Formats: sequence, C-alpha cells, structure tokens
Amino acid sequence: MIIDHRNVRITGGFWKKKMDLNRRVTMNAVYDRFHESGRIDAFRCDWKEGMPNRPHIFWDSDVAKWMEGAAYILETDDNPALEEKVEQLVDWIEANQHEDGYFNIYYTVVEPDKRWTDRNCHELYCAGHLMEAACAYYNATGRDRFLNCMKKYADYIAKVFMEEHSAAFRTPGHEEIELALYKMYKTTGEEKYFDLMKYFLETRGQPDNDEAQIFLAAHYAQSHAPIRDQHEAFGHSVRAMYLYSGMADLANETGDEALLTACRDLFDDTTRRKMYVTGGIGSTNIGEAFTIPYDLPNARAYTETCASIGLMFFANRMFRADPVKSSKYADVVELEMYNGALSGLSLDGEKFFYENPLEINLTERHRITATNDREHFPITERVRIFGCSCCPPNLNRLLPALGDYFCGWDEAEGAVYVNQFGQSEFSLGDAHVTVETDYPLTGRVHVKADVPVYMRVPGWCRGNFRADAPHVTANGYARFDAGEFTIVYEMKPVLISANVNVTPNLGKAALKRGPVVYCAEGVDNGGDVHSLYFDRSTVRNADVEYSDFFSAPVITLPGFRIRNSSDDLYGPLDEVYEFVKIRMIPYAAFANRGETNMLVWINVR
Amino acid sequence: MIIDHRNVRITGGFWKKKMDLNRRVTMNAVYDRFHESGRIDAFRCDWKEGMPNRPHIFWDSDVAKWMEGAAYILETDDNPALEEKVEQLVDWIEANQHEDGYFNIYYTVVEPDKRWTDRNCHELYCAGHLMEAACAYYNATGRDRFLNCMKKYADYIAKVFMEEHSAAFRTPGHEEIELALYKMYKTTGEEKYFDLMKYFLETRGQPDNDEAQIFLAAHYAQSHAPIRDQHEAFGHSVRAMYLYSGMADLANETGDEALLTACRDLFDDTTRRKMYVTGGIGSTNIGEAFTIPYDLPNARAYTETCASIGLMFFANRMFRADPVKSSKYADVVELEMYNGALSGLSLDGEKFFYENPLEINLTERHRITATNDREHFPITERVRIFGCSCCPPNLNRLLPALGDYFCGWDEAEGAVYVNQFGQSEFSLGDAHVTVETDYPLTGRVHVKADVPVYMRVPGWCRGNFRADAPHVTANGYARFDAGEFTIVYEMKPVLISANVNVTPNLGKAALKRGPVVYCAEGVDNGGDVHSLYFDRSTVRNADVEYSDFFSAPVITLPGFRIRNSSDDLYGPLDEVYEFVKIRMIPYAAFANRGETNMLVWINVR
Repeated sequence: MIIDHRNVRITGGFWKKKMDLNRRVTMNAVYDRFHESGRIDAFRCDWKEGMPNRPHIFWDSDVAKWMEGAAYILETDDNPALEEKVEQLVDWIEANQHEDGYFNIYYTVVEPDKRWTDRNCHELYCAGHLMEAACAYYNATGRDRFLNCMKKYADYIAKVFMEEHSAAFRTPGHEEIELALYKMYKTTGEEKYFDLMKYFLETRGQPDNDEAQIFLAAHYAQSHAPIRDQHEAFGHSVRAMYLYSGMADLANETGDEALLTACRDLFDDTTRRKMYVTGGIGSTNIGEAFTIPYDLPNARAYTETCASIGLMFFANRMFRADPVKSSKYADVVELEMYNGALSGLSLDGEKFFYENPLEINLTERHRITATNDREHFPITERVRIFGCSCCPPNLNRLLPALGDYFCGWDEAEGAVYVNQFGQSEFSLGDAHVTVETDYPLTGRVHVKADVPVYMRVPGWCRGNFRADAPHVTANGYARFDAGEFTIVYEMKPVLISANVNVTPNLGKAALKRGPVVYCAEGVDNGGDVHSLYFDRSTVRNADVEYSDFFSAPVITLPGFRIRNSSDDLYGPLDEVYEFVKIRMIPYAAFANRGETNMLVWINVR
Repeated sequence: MIIDHRNVRITGGFWKKKMDLNRRVTMNAVYDRFHESGRIDAFRCDWKEGMPNRPHIFWDSDVAKWMEGAAYILETDDNPALEEKVEQLVDWIEANQHEDGYFNIYYTVVEPDKRWTDRNCHELYCAGHLMEAACAYYNATGRDRFLNCMKKYADYIAKVFMEEHSAAFRTPGHEEIELALYKMYKTTGEEKYFDLMKYFLETRGQPDNDEAQIFLAAHYAQSHAPIRDQHEAFGHSVRAMYLYSGMADLANETGDEALLTACRDLFDDTTRRKMYVTGGIGSTNIGEAFTIPYDLPNARAYTETCASIGLMFFANRMFRADPVKSSKYADVVELEMYNGALSGLSLDGEKFFYENPLEINLTERHRITATNDREHFPITERVRIFGCSCCPPNLNRLLPALGDYFCGWDEAEGAVYVNQFGQSEFSLGDAHVTVETDYPLTGRVHVKADVPVYMRVPGWCRGNFRADAPHVTANGYARFDAGEFTIVYEMKPVLISANVNVTPNLGKAALKRGPVVYCAEGVDNGGDVHSLYFDRSTVRNADVEYSDFFSAPVITLPGFRIRNSSDDLYGPLDEVYEFVKIRMIPYAAFANRGETNMLVWINVR
C-alpha cells in the first residue's frame, strides 16, 4: 500500500520549495483568477441570463480541485483566511444543493431542465471533483458538512444511474467520479460508494450514447470496450488516466487478475509507446488525445499538464495494486514530477501551461501568423488562467499531497518502499524512516529506518549506484535491512535517444541528468537553438552548476553550431561546424524568460 | 531573345520520349477525363439547373490549356482526330460567344447576371487561357477563326475595363491574362493588346476590391503593391508566377529598369529563399501560397505542379528580358523540367499530382486518419483528374512546346545560347545548330554550329566541365566559336545540403546527379526510409545504373540504417547502425509503384 501524505513530512529541498510556493503564491493566484472570472461567485447559484460570467459546465470542478488543494494545506497549516474561503464555498454548496441531492452550477442556473441529458457535459466529472475535495476536507479538518453534501449527492447519483436508469446515458463522458467514489468509500467506509464506482466501471464499454462524441466516437472517452478488454491507451488522455486510475483502484480492492492485466497493458502502452521523454502524454490537440504508437511530434505536442498529473495518479495506483512492486511505476511518477507535470507551473508560481510542447520554433510560429494557418500549436508563454482552466488547480492539489508518492508499505514483510527521494520523514505505526538528501542536486541519499527498506533504483541510473550497507537488488529496488545507510545514485549528464520509430527524433538526442530532462532555450544560446549539435564525445565534460533562479543545476557542455558555408539555399554538403558552449536548463523551467526558441531533441554528432 | 520551339526539333533522348508520351497518351487521357466530367460538352453552353455536371468557373481554362497543347502538336503532326476535337470546341466558342464579345461558360449558363461581379471568379484567367490557345492554334494552322473570337473578346474586355470601368474590380483576381495579351500582341501585331496588358499590370496594387480575398487579403493575389514595388514573392504561387511572367514580358518590351529590378528581386526571392530543392514552390496549402523565407516543410509541401510550370515561364522570360544572360535562369528551368514540374506526371502518362511533397510518412498519414485530424497533407498516389484540374492540361501544353526553353539568340552578336541539353536541332535564319547528347544519362554534349555558341555551364556542375575547343567562361556560360566541339559536364552523384535556416533539413542531405534530384522510396528500401542514413564518405562509390522503367539511372549507394539497441522508448544514446545499400530513384518518378514511404532529405553521417 501507499503511505498517505499525512504520514509523510517533506522537510526540505526542491519539493519543499515548490510546496511552499504553491501555498504562498499559487493557491492565491488561482483563487484570485477564479474570483475575477466569476468561478467563485458562481457557487451562489444566482446567475441569470444577461449577467456577466455565464457559468461554464466545468466550473464546479475547477474550484473543487482548488478546494481539495486547500484541504491538504489545512492539514498542517493554521490558515484561517484559507479556511474561510473553503467554508464560504461549502456554505453555498449546502445552500444550493437541490432537495434530491443534486448539485451542479451550470444545470442549476443556465439549463435547469437539461440535467443528465448530455453525456459530454461533465456533470459526473464535476461531481467527482467535489467528492474528492469533500473527502480531503473531512480528512483534514474532521468537519463533515461538505462530505455529507457529497454523500447525499452520491446517493442521488446511485438512484438515478443504478436504480431508475433515468439519465440519457449510463457512464460519464469524462471519467473522474470512479476514483472519487473510491475515495468516498475509503473515507466513509460505506460500500455503496464502492458499488457505484464499480457500476460505472463495469458498465463502461456497453452501448451508451457515444455517437454524441464529437471526436473519435467511443474511443475518445474510452467507451469502446469493457474495461478488461482495454489494452491500448486511446482517446482523450486526461479521461484515459482518470479511468485507468479508477480501474487500478478497483483491481487493488478486488485483486481481479484480468483487470490488473488490462491496467498493466494500459500502463505499458502509455509509457513505452505513447509518452514523450518528458513524461508528457497526448500527442494531438484533436480531442486532446493519444494517437498511434510512436507518434510524438515535438512542436505540436499537446501533452496537457492534467494528463501528466493523471499519469502520476495511475502510476501510483499501479504501484499499490500490482503485487509485483516494479520500480517502473515510481520511475514514471518521478519523470512527471520533475518534467511533464512541473512544466505546467511558472517559476514565480503564478502562470501556467495547459500544453507542454518539446519544441518552440518561432520561425514556424511566424509562418502560422503570416498565413492565417489554422494548424494548432501550443502557446509559447505561460498565462494566468485559461478558459478551460483545469490544469492550474490540478497543480494546487498535487503539490501539497506530494507525499502520497514518496513511499509505500509492505504489510506482509513490515518493510518500507522509498519511491521518491527528498529531505523527508515518514512513519506508519511503529515504523519510522528519515531520509536526508539534496536530491536531485546530487544522487546521495542517507536513510535511517527501524524497518527494512526497499530503495528504488531509478531506471535512469541503470544500476549504477553504490551503498555502504549490504543490499539485494530485484525489480528495480535495493533492499536494505533496518538501520542506517547511504546510497549514491550515479548522477551525470547523459544523452538519450528515442526509439527509431519516433521518426522526428532520428539523429537527435535529449539531455538528462538524473530524473531531470533538459532543454536549450534561445535566450541562452544566441537566439537560434535549431542549428545546435550535441557532441556525443564531450558530454562527459559538461559543467553542472547550481542556479538559484531555477533551484536546479544548469548544464553547459561543448557542442557545435552548424553554419552555412555560403548564402545559397542549396549547395554541396559541406557544412561548417563551429565550436560552441550549449547551455541547457531544466525542461520544466522553460518559457520563464520571455518568448524564445526551445528544443529538447537536439541534433547530435 | 528566345528561339521559339517551332524552330527547335527535339530529335531523341529523354524529352523526346516524354513528348511522345504526352502526344500518344496524356493528351487523350486528359481529354477523356474532361469529357467524362462534362468539361468538353460545357462549351455547348446548354447546361441548365438540374442537369448533371454543373460547369465550374475555371472549366474554360482547363480545356483551353488542353487546346493550346493540341495546337503545338498540330504544328508538326498530321492528326485529323485531334484537329477535329479542337475545331469542334472552336465551333462552340464561336457559336456561344456573346454579341458583345464575351465568352465564359459559367457566367453564360449558371450565373448569367453576375458577369464581372466577383474578382475571385477567374473570368479574366479563363479569357487569358483561351487567348493563349487561340494564338497557338493560329500559329500552328494559320486558321484565324479562334483568334478572331479572342480578338473580339479582348476588345470587349478593353472596353469594360479601360473605358467604361464597369466591372466590380479593376484587375484580375487570378493573373494570367497579362501574359496572354502579350501573346495576342505578338501574334496579331496589334498594340491595343499590349496596351490592355500594360493597363492590367500598371493598375495592379492600386485599391481594388481585395477585401473579397479570403486568404491573406491583397498579398494573396499580389495586389498589395504596384508592380515596381514588389520585391518579395507573396501569396498564391501560381498567380505570382503568372504575374511575374507578365511583368517580365513588359520589361522585355520596354526595357524598363525599375520593373526589371523588381523582376530580378522576385526571381531571387523565389529561387534563393522559397524554393524546394526539387524546384517546387508554395509551402502551404493555405491559399496555395508562399509563406516566409526558408519555410520549406517536406511532408506538407504544397508545391503545385502549375507553380513549377509557372516558374519555368517566369525564368525563361527573365532570360529573355535580362540583358545579363546569367545561366541561373536556365538552371531553374532545368531543375523544374527534371523534377518539380515533371513529378506532376505519372510514368504511364495518365495520372497526375497537383501537389508534389518531398516526403511521405505513412505513419503520419495513419495518425491523420486515426484521429480525424484536419491537418492537410498531399495525396500519396497520382490520380486521373482533380476537381480543380489545372495541372494536367498545363503539362499537356508544356511538353510539346518544350523547345521554347532550349536556346536563345543574341542578335547583336549573332550567337546562340544553348540553355537545355537534348538531342536536337535548331535554327534561326541562317544559323544552324545541331546538338548530339544522351544527357542527362551522361554529361557529354556534342555541338555543331555555324555561329558562335554560348553553352550553359549548369550551376550544379560548379565549373567542373571539360571541352575539346577553346572557350571563355562568364556568367555561367562557356562561349565557343562557330564550329564543332564536345563539352562534358562532370555528372556524378552529389550530396546536397540546405541552408541552415531550413531547420527541418538540418543534419540531412539530398542526392542529386546532374540536374536530377533523387529520392528513396519504401518499396525499394524495406518499407521504412526514415531510418536510413547517407554515408558522406561513400557517395563516390555509388552505382549508377540505367533503368528502362524510369528512363533514367537509379543510384545505389552504401549507407546505414539506424536500429534500436532495445525495444525501449528511450535509452542512452547508443544507436546501432547497420550497413545497407540505399536505392534512390529520380524524384520525379516517385509514387509510380503503389503507396509507399518516400524521402528526399535523408539523415547523413
């Protein structure tokens, strides 16, 4: 099982800083933008036609995710101002919940007669996020007002969907409520929420009104097959991750082997065929979706922040559900933490990316503008809020609960799994573990534990680590007996290549150091990054220097820049390579210094 | 001046075969498709609402280009069946020409009350093509019935546009009539046609109803500036080439230096910043247009066949108009002849490309299909006809008049310029020249001439030629005295690189041999061409072997194929290169053996 973040104290280092930034800056920034855009006051449910800020179908969920983040913060922080904001929202939810238990802003004030008529319109998705927030708030404060509202809502949903079958559809068009109901079950102990979760999962893939889906029909919302028959990741990538997370929850609860096999296959298909080197998933803006194996265009990568966070959810649940405690699950979590998920947040904590491309080519952008091309490219600078602003509050709730990803507990053996490395302390019952490290600045991790410890050996170090105590290695973990020891993962800049089926990356390499993917930005490299070449023979001469600005090392390494031997458009192959120093920054920190070219995959000689 | 194709006999070799193919196969194929689609019978002008085959606004021009091709063939061929088809069309044109001289199928039978109301609707473009055909038919047969119709039409157009100003616009939305009126002037000797041509050119760039343009406003149809202020190629690439051709005609007639400067700049901007290595122009399907310098995406190249043919028109006129007889003009003509224009025609002469991409990646295509992506990609196999079928008859008229591009005449010196090399004989007055060669199979050209001869030294041979007679070289021409001599251009496979500003081609090379650009097709290379690498050190070991199927050599050269060292999606840079033979075929002949991957720009080590 996972050790809950409430039992994990992150006491310093990289993540402590990010969590503090979220608490101090990002939470307020998101709340203020939500307030300005009408999302907060929408919970008063007094909007009328003609008034500004017409509520949108997913506004409940935007705010619910922020509330969930607030709840996690209130577990440890005494913050009356924050608490008051949540309480105010709960007041409104309580006041505006319908007699029968229903709560949804849009279908209360905009289209009150359309309740449960459109499978695409996010009602169950919004309900799920409210339930997650209610569970978190109850767990944090012990106050059950919000949870009681959501229990009533869940009971009503069970009646509509499982008894009366009176909705126009049978399963949600956007998954989320499945994993939320599992939390309701775990929080309340009431099996009826598990039954409802199971109903939505088991009913999926039976005929539903999928023809209403605008993209890719049933595949878009993973409705093309019963869950045990799903072995390839399809459709909208956030929907997919939330569904697979719910499936893993169910497999964990029941030990269902066929379901676990489907989950393993979906995890492998996602991470071994459809994932960017940054952890980003979802290759196309068309349906915000997966496409086909190895289709991973860099400049047009969609790679939604929420999808990366969703993959963290799924990976962590797979660690829990899979009896085989392979380190691959925590490897993917780590990849997202330092790269694909984190890139959604600006260094100042106030601005966000929804899409996280692996390349910015300003010349190409200029063409798009110059020709009125309708081709879709991600934006090049972070913004404070989006029309569909799901990603910012997803970061709000991810960061304060990051402890959820740090460690697991093997009950049979009474041993701890250390999955993520950071200055931290955690405990379960009598077991206590202290981790001291400046990871990922170095790969040195010092552990004190009164139980046996399985230390993850990250895939990226490929077995290159040393330790000062006896250990046995299997499935990507090194097992140490209870006591004190130091493990050092070899952490040096490494050039990475992609599978040759990823044709755009042929002849190119990406630079990683430990879990951190690097990128070159124009602002550090004379404007143009596309003409840069890595020198494969000199990566070992890279300078790694800590930067306060990035809270991480920047890497400078000898390389080349290709120059024209003439002004001709074409000429005999006779390139001029000049020696240059290439400056690389952590990928997650790109686009924090104005609009500039950016490249992860760089030509290599 | 140019020596007209009527004075040039192409007696054998590569082009003789293509011209015979056009005469025997392509002319009939295009006529039959035009007949089936209703384009031929549309000239009866008896279509009524409810009948099939509703005439389209550009149908006149499709058939007119075919008629022009027929006229050139009738110059030398006794072909009563072909003549009868043309005469039948002329009968209908004569019968259905309006009293006032107007002739246009669409605006006669579909929207008779909309004459001259929509600048985009190709009326003047259709008129221009009919005039070109009429001039060609008169020159070929001496029969003036068609020409008289078009004189009457031109007189009427002059009245509407220059006197009454009664049309809703002042200049054509699709240029073409300018160069056609110059032909009318040259054919009839009547200055009024020159005046009308001049009017349309000189009026361009003054306020017109450009806001009706859907793409790129005025730039789309090159209406953004007066002609002497145009120095960068903008907008729809076929429109651009036809306009620039008309501008060069005007500059040639008047010696206008400012206009000539504009033409030179437009030629250089087109060929030195916006042209593919194949000669293709027009980088985007959005408006079938130029974009920005160095924006030359390979798989999404638009590169319309008509635009390449149009660039041949422009280049040949620049050779004529520019007192500096630089070989760069004929170099571009040659590039188009063997590559970007020729690729529009299948080897069997019956199928066509409108767009001529430089890359086919079937995986990418599969993604497009799988995701309902609206992104535009060219088709991967040639077809028999298009809805907008301008390209096939443009090939029909290009090939029989190809002699137009072979040589020029310097009146002052009484010398001949030999611009294109093929088994041929030509004469002007007392000057006679015989050229014997199997070019481009070899670079050996034997010439017998009773006047001095300027032999083009193609840019691609970079001065590497030898000759058995004294000569002086300047501006890309080698001047020989009258007599007999042999010149041998060094013709070996060469790897070409693109300017580094063309970012997609960084680290890649294209293979050329003489004027011929090569490509790798999957069908010859185990399916996948994207994983191939040229070996820069072994190009000199290439095997060049003549292929009957392609009427040209295929090239086999040692190279590499990159393989995965594991099945992992990402891993340390540790590629496995295996030795392979790469088989390359002439680019113009791609897509003649079923749908397959194709690549011009290949990674190079």
